[in-house]
Amino acid sequence: MTYCVRMLTEAGLVMIADTRTNAGVDNISTYQKLHLLDEAPDRLILMATAGSLSVTQALRSTLAEGLPSLEPDGPKRMLRDMPTMFRVAQLVGEALMTVRQAINHVLVGTSVDSSVALLLGGRIGAEGLHLYLIYNEGNFIECSPDCPFLQIGELKYGKPILDRTLTYQTSLDEAVKVGLISFDSTMRSNLSVGRPFDLIAVPSDPERAVVRHRIEVEDSYYDQLSDDWGRLMTEARNAIADPPFMKESI
Amino acid sequence: MTYCVRMLTEAGLVMIADTRTNAGVDNISTYQKLHLLDEAPDRLILMATAGSLSVTQALRSTLAEGLPSLEPDGPKRMLRDMPTMFRVAQLVGEALMTVRQAINHVLVGTSVDSSVALLLGGRIGAEGLHLYLIYNEGNFIECSPDCPFLQIGELKYGKPILDRTLTYQTSLDEAVKVGLISFDSTMRSNLSVGRPFDLIAVPSDPERAVVRHRIEVEDSYYDQLSDDWGRLMTEARNAIADPPFMKESI
Repeated sequence: MTYCVRMLTEAGLVMIADTRTNAGVDNISTYQKLHLLDEAPDRLILMATAGSLSVTQALRSTLAEGLPSLEPDGPKRMLRDMPTMFRVAQLVGEALMTVRQAINHVLVGTSVDSSVALLLGGRIGAEGLHLYLIYNEGNFIECSPDCPFLQIGELKYGKPILDRTLTYQTSLDEAVKVGLISFDSTMRSNLSVGRPFDLIAVPSDPERAVVRHRIEVEDSYYDQLSDDWGRLMTEARNAIADPPFMKESI
Repeated sequence: MTYCVRMLTEAGLVMIADTRTNAGVDNISTYQKLHLLDEAPDRLILMATAGSLSVTQALRSTLAEGLPSLEPDGPKRMLRDMPTMFRVAQLVGEALMTVRQAINHVLVGTSVDSSVALLLGGRIGAEGLHLYLIYNEGNFIECSPDCPFLQIGELKYGKPILDRTLTYQTSLDEAVKVGLISFDSTMRSNLSVGRPFDLIAVPSDPERAVVRHRIEVEDSYYDQLSDDWGRLMTEARNAIADPPFMKESI
C-alpha cells in the first residue's frame, strides 16, 4: 500500500509520499514514490505514484527514454520539450497506457493487480503551478482552489484532518504540518504505510527555494509532532462541552 | 453504507449507529440500526447492524420468534432464556447463519451483497458488561480492555480520533464525545453515513440509568460539537512547532 498527498494553496505546492511497498505483511521494502521527473531553470515536474511498482518503474523509464514521435523519423517526445503542464500530463497519461497495454494481456486470468494512480505537479515557465490526478487508464483531472488537496493510495484515515484544517489560504508551513499529521493518522492504522516519507514543497513565489526533505524512520521533529498531536487531540476533546443528554445517567 | 461504533471503558458501554441506508446515491432511506433486543431487570441486550437490511431485519424477526429447540418438542430457544452474554452471542450467530443460508442459494450469480456485521453488547445478571463483534459467517470475537473500541461499516475516517483519544480509563461522557466526533469525521467524507444517529450509554454501575438518545438531523449540541471540533483542530495545528526544514525555503 501507499499513501501520497499533495496540497495546493495560494502559497505553493506540497507533495508527500511514503516509501513502503509490500507484497503481503511478510514482504516489505522501501522504494521511493515521490520523483523529480524534470528540473531546469524554466521547469519543475514532480510525480508521486501509488499502485503496482513494476508499472510505475516502467512508466518512469519510458518517460526518461521518450515516447515515439508522431511523425516519421521525428525526434522522440520528451518531458523536457513539453511547453505546458497540460502537455506533460497528456504525455504521462499516454506513457501509462503504453506500459499497461504491454503487460495487461499476460495478466488476464491472474489475480495480479497492475493498477496505479499518479499525482503530477509542477510548473513550466511563467504559467504557475498546476496539479493533476492521473487515473489508471491515463485520463486525468486538474485540481482547483475549491479542492486544495488530492490523495492517492490509503486515503481514508488521513482525510478528516485535511477536510478540517486545510484551505486554499493555508500557509506553506501549516500545509506541511497538516500533511504530516495526515500521514501520522494513516500510519497508525495501516501497517502498509510507513516511514521514511519524502516531502517536496514548491513555493508559488519562484524566488523562494524549493524544499526537499526526507522524514526518516528516526526523526525528532516528526516524533514530537506525533506526540504533540495526540496530546492536543485529548485537550480538544476535553474542551468540548459535555453532552447534556448524559445528565440523565447521573 | 453504515457506520456503527461501540466503546467499552471501565465506566461503561457506549454504542452509536447512524440510520442511513442506501441503494445508490439516489435511493436513501432512514432505518434504525441500533436495537434493544431484550430488556428486563436482570438483562440488557443491544445490537447494532451493518450490511444487508433484508438480512438484518430477518435476523431480528428470527430472534424474536425464537430458534427451534435442539430437543424434540422442546421449547423454542429465546434470547430471554440465555443465561450468559456468551450464549446470547452463540444464539445470534446461529440465527444469522440460518437467515443467510435461506437466501444465499438464490443470490448465486447475482451481484447482490447479503453480507452483514453485528456489534452485540449488554449484560445479564451480575456478570458485567460483555461485547462481541459477530462476523458474516456467525462466528464472533469478544472485546478486551486492550481494544476499547470496535467499529463496523465505513470505519476508516472515524478511526484516528478513537485511536488517539479513547482508552479503557476514559469516562462515559468523554467516550460519548469521542464517538460523536468520530461520526462527524465519517459523515463529512461519506455521504452514505448520515443523521439521525442513535446512541445508547450503559454505565458499568447498575445503579445508574441507561441513557438512550437520538441525535436528530437538527441538533444544537451536535452542531456545536462539530463547529468546535473544526476550530480546535485548527488551533491544535497552529500549536504544533513549525517544521525546521522549511526554513530553507525562506
